[in-house]
Amino acid sequence: MRASQFLISTLKEAPADAEVASHKLMMRAGMIKKLGAGIYTYMPMGLRVIRKVEAIVREEMDRAGAVECAMPVVQPAELWQESGRFEKMGPELLRIKDRHDRDFVVQPTSEEVVTDIARQELRSYKQLPKNLYQIQTKFRDERRPRFGLMRGREFTMKDAYSFDRDQASAKKSYEAMAQAYRRIFDRFGLRYRAVAADSGAIGGDLSEEFQVIAATGEDAIVYSPESQYAANMEKAEALAPKGPRKAAAQAMQKVPTPGKSTCEQVAELLKVPLDTTVKSLVLATDRMDAQGGIVGTQVWLLLVRGDHDMNEIKVGKVPGLDVGYRFATVPEIEAHFGTRPGYLGPIALKQKVKIVADREVALMADWICGANEEGFHLTGVNWGRDLPEPDAVADLRNVVEGDPSPDGKGRLAIERGIEIGHIFYLGTKYSKAMNATFLDEDGKPKVFEMGCYGIGITRLPAAAIEQNHDERGIIWPDAIAPFTVVVCPIGMDRSAEVKTAAEKLHDELVAAGIDVMLDDRGERPGAMFADWELIGVPHRVVISDRGLKEGQVEYQHRRDAAATKTAVADIAAFLKGRLAA
Amino acid sequence: MRASQFLISTLKEAPADAEVASHKLMMRAGMIKKLGAGIYTYMPMGLRVIRKVEAIVREEMDRAGAVECAMPVVQPAELWQESGRFEKMGPELLRIKDRHDRDFVVQPTSEEVVTDIARQELRSYKQLPKNLYQIQTKFRDERRPRFGLMRGREFTMKDAYSFDRDQASAKKSYEAMAQAYRRIFDRFGLRYRAVAADSGAIGGDLSEEFQVIAATGEDAIVYSPESQYAANMEKAEALAPKGPRKAAAQAMQKVPTPGKSTCEQVAELLKVPLDTTVKSLVLATDRMDAQGGIVGTQVWLLLVRGDHDMNEIKVGKVPGLDVGYRFATVPEIEAHFGTRPGYLGPIALKQKVKIVADREVALMADWICGANEEGFHLTGVNWGRDLPEPDAVADLRNVVEGDPSPDGKGRLAIERGIEIGHIFYLGTKYSKAMNATFLDEDGKPKVFEMGCYGIGITRLPAAAIEQNHDERGIIWPDAIAPFTVVVCPIGMDRSAEVKTAAEKLHDELVAAGIDVMLDDRGERPGAMFADWELIGVPHRVVISDRGLKEGQVEYQHRRDAAATKTAVADIAAFLKGRLAA
Repeated sequence: MRASQFLISTLKEAPADAEVASHKLMMRAGMIKKLGAGIYTYMPMGLRVIRKVEAIVREEMDRAGAVECAMPVVQPAELWQESGRFEKMGPELLRIKDRHDRDFVVQPTSEEVVTDIARQELRSYKQLPKNLYQIQTKFRDERRPRFGLMRGREFTMKDAYSFDRDQASAKKSYEAMAQAYRRIFDRFGLRYRAVAADSGAIGGDLSEEFQVIAATGEDAIVYSPESQYAANMEKAEALAPKGPRKAAAQAMQKVPTPGKSTCEQVAELLKVPLDTTVKSLVLATDRMDAQGGIVGTQVWLLLVRGDHDMNEIKVGKVPGLDVGYRFATVPEIEAHFGTRPGYLGPIALKQKVKIVADREVALMADWICGANEEGFHLTGVNWGRDLPEPDAVADLRNVVEGDPSPDGKGRLAIERGIEIGHIFYLGTKYSKAMNATFLDEDGKPKVFEMGCYGIGITRLPAAAIEQNHDERGIIWPDAIAPFTVVVCPIGMDRSAEVKTAAEKLHDELVAAGIDVMLDDRGERPGAMFADWELIGVPHRVVISDRGLKEGQVEYQHRRDAAATKTAVADIAAFLKGRLAA
Repeated sequence: MRASQFLISTLKEAPADAEVASHKLMMRAGMIKKLGAGIYTYMPMGLRVIRKVEAIVREEMDRAGAVECAMPVVQPAELWQESGRFEKMGPELLRIKDRHDRDFVVQPTSEEVVTDIARQELRSYKQLPKNLYQIQTKFRDERRPRFGLMRGREFTMKDAYSFDRDQASAKKSYEAMAQAYRRIFDRFGLRYRAVAADSGAIGGDLSEEFQVIAATGEDAIVYSPESQYAANMEKAEALAPKGPRKAAAQAMQKVPTPGKSTCEQVAELLKVPLDTTVKSLVLATDRMDAQGGIVGTQVWLLLVRGDHDMNEIKVGKVPGLDVGYRFATVPEIEAHFGTRPGYLGPIALKQKVKIVADREVALMADWICGANEEGFHLTGVNWGRDLPEPDAVADLRNVVEGDPSPDGKGRLAIERGIEIGHIFYLGTKYSKAMNATFLDEDGKPKVFEMGCYGIGITRLPAAAIEQNHDERGIIWPDAIAPFTVVVCPIGMDRSAEVKTAAEKLHDELVAAGIDVMLDDRGERPGAMFADWELIGVPHRVVISDRGLKEGQVEYQHRRDAAATKTAVADIAAFLKGRLAA
């Protein structure tokens, strides 16, 4: 490709609304162009990256035995009503009415459509297992689209859906995808981790996220440097500390703590370590009748150590809270605790509440908590003596650096990541809701066991940039660079030798199947180099009259501090060798 | 590919709503699956065809120097309001409101977005010419979606847009696309014609349609077998007949024709040829004030020969009618002609109307028309004697078979076609409306000269099938077949020899880069052959125990009446040779 025939459009400054590096750099490098909030045109330079991502994903999905199809972007609402998602999903589901006032959605995913295909086309166990995938435009009407392609509204996703006759086979399909995902992310040339994840609202048991490691990532990744253990923060288990509980050493005492309602403030006031304090969180669960009317409410008090954070996913799994919980209202709190929020604790309650202690709190002695009286805390509190043992003990908190690894090997470390892939074992959630069955070997209809597997195709380039950039611009891994090599001739318009050498190298690399860009725009060297460093082409060859006189050109990898002189006769072979490796 | 790993789903019967061959066969062959009216999932077998179409289009667009990008499917309304299309386009433009109640559209084309990109990115004449294209999902909310992919609502289009500094350069860009389109359609292996077309509402001068020849096509294509002349029916000119007008031979006479209001009925009643009668069409044009109020109306009478059809596009080009015309109302007709529609004519008018005669009618003598009196016609009518010469003479009619070719070479023939591509020279329609300018060599801003160029990617397979099918199914051209070769082993599960030979051939063809399908499903030969004939794979090899005993396999092209025995040792080389040709 010659630059004069391409569309190169770099900017000195990123637009004001670009906050993260990938967004700034993709805008400055002319890879994307904003059309509206969270809606971008993929410009020629950016589209080349996306097409390479797609090609690698497609190759590996095909290799794993998945079959590609393409489901409509605009989908009639009927199937979405059948699964219940048309009603359940919030405003992020973009709804449309056509000319006949019929309801449609722009697909955010395609579980409904693919399950509908399966129940019609996969009639016999002999056709199973089957994995159908698509690389298709999606839309999610995010409340706050931001970070460019990282959290856009329109985006491209690879979504795959597996159909199996039983759980054992479904787990094999899941495993095949887990392996394919590793091959895919290995080929991208990115540092990533596959981490155990909570399967969340989508249901099912097995779930892994593929996270590109980047300091700017939105997600916390928990791992053990001494083992294979890795999970996201929602999922990572905080093991119970080694017991037994220490014996009580202090008497319980009410101390004035006026205006000090947080654990941090109380610890500072009392000059005690934060980990001797206990935080209170008051939740409520409602019992409904068949019509959805509330017929009874249970109030819960959850306790975690003052230096720990509550984990909402874990809270949602506590028996009794797993039906769906809410924060208690101020009147509910006053009725049970006799005071307003700020100085709450488990002692001297007006009405009974269910107390759930974090594993850590359950083993504490001589701890500090609110006194249920404005301006006062209790110190020297002890289980069994000052209050009954908790109704339940559970893992309620986020892990922290140094916690023991749940697999028993080493201590946990935490780093940041960007989720670019997610694989789920779905079970029968959709197949049951949509009565999607096949005839099993015994001649009886049976619902499919399903899995679903996503890769954020257009998010991936952004994640790659977050991981690979410097102050001058992007540094693409070879596999997804818009061009692998850029040939920068200096004074191509003045020197026939430079022109000939540049074009010869370009043509030879093209013939070898290497994606090469010849910058024939006639820019000054400084501007030309700055453009390609911004755009992030990994391999650069500079051809100048002065160099050619010595029979040399200059090669520089985007990560190299300086250029290396290379014989002009050897450069093509050198690049071919380096890129084949 | 092995059939057991793919998704093959053939039907004996097409669904009731499938009217045309391509729709029936694509449904029966499991290529597409209906999700809603005019909305289809591209199933694995169909998607393979579409991907091949895309790849050929992409290669040739790139070769022609166009640069690929991808504009959003969901587009904010602002640019569409700027061009005026948000208001002007009817309900076929799918409109959306997002969670903030802002207006969006699902793109039916992308003139607005690409013009917006150009006015920002193409700042200097040095960056011109530039041609940007995308292969992207489109949506048109057709009133009556039908014929499967032929007239769907969601579809894929390749749309390209050229930007030039002046008309001469724009015409070169147009010509480059005309040549690229010929290369593309040549590669598809389809019989097609490039025909001159009216540029219609989209504006501009140069316009050609690429029509796949098929008896079931919706469009009439006019061509001269003796020259390069080809045009669509809207555009094809009916030359003026050789004059002079014959002398009058009959006296004008009023004859009773009760209940006979059409030319056909009158000619039958009077026992005269249909081409002695003249049809009347009454139109009106309104003169507006600045606020759009009607301040005056002109009534027009258009006359064409009884055996000819009026051509609305040509009528719209008559000076005075080119401002936009409508059919006259019954009160307007009664006020001017003194009678209701049915027996109208140009003689004995109550009020003056403008009379436009088709070129053919202007040279007629002794003709028949309505008498402006219920139940009566006039015969022996002659220009100049019985009524004044017409106010204007124009080409108002569709050409018919045998008309002289407008290029003076031979006589016109007519065949049917399916439009799969269209190229337009747009001029400055959009660049002016959106003030899209670049700095020209003289340092002054100048609006872009534009062209636009479409190919119906998902319509193309349907058109290919309309042209290439028989009673057993589809017959794909090699270039866009889902699989080029199918290997059908008979009794693969029983015979190790058959299995080995089939797998060896499959692997050898795969290694040669040939798209081969090995049918390992274990179907009976009849059902297996019927499936592949329906699906339309062009080359078939049957491997059986009996054949192998003689060292032979059977080769059959989908168009061959019978199979040819070929030595098993030669078959791979034979196929490679045949497919390389």
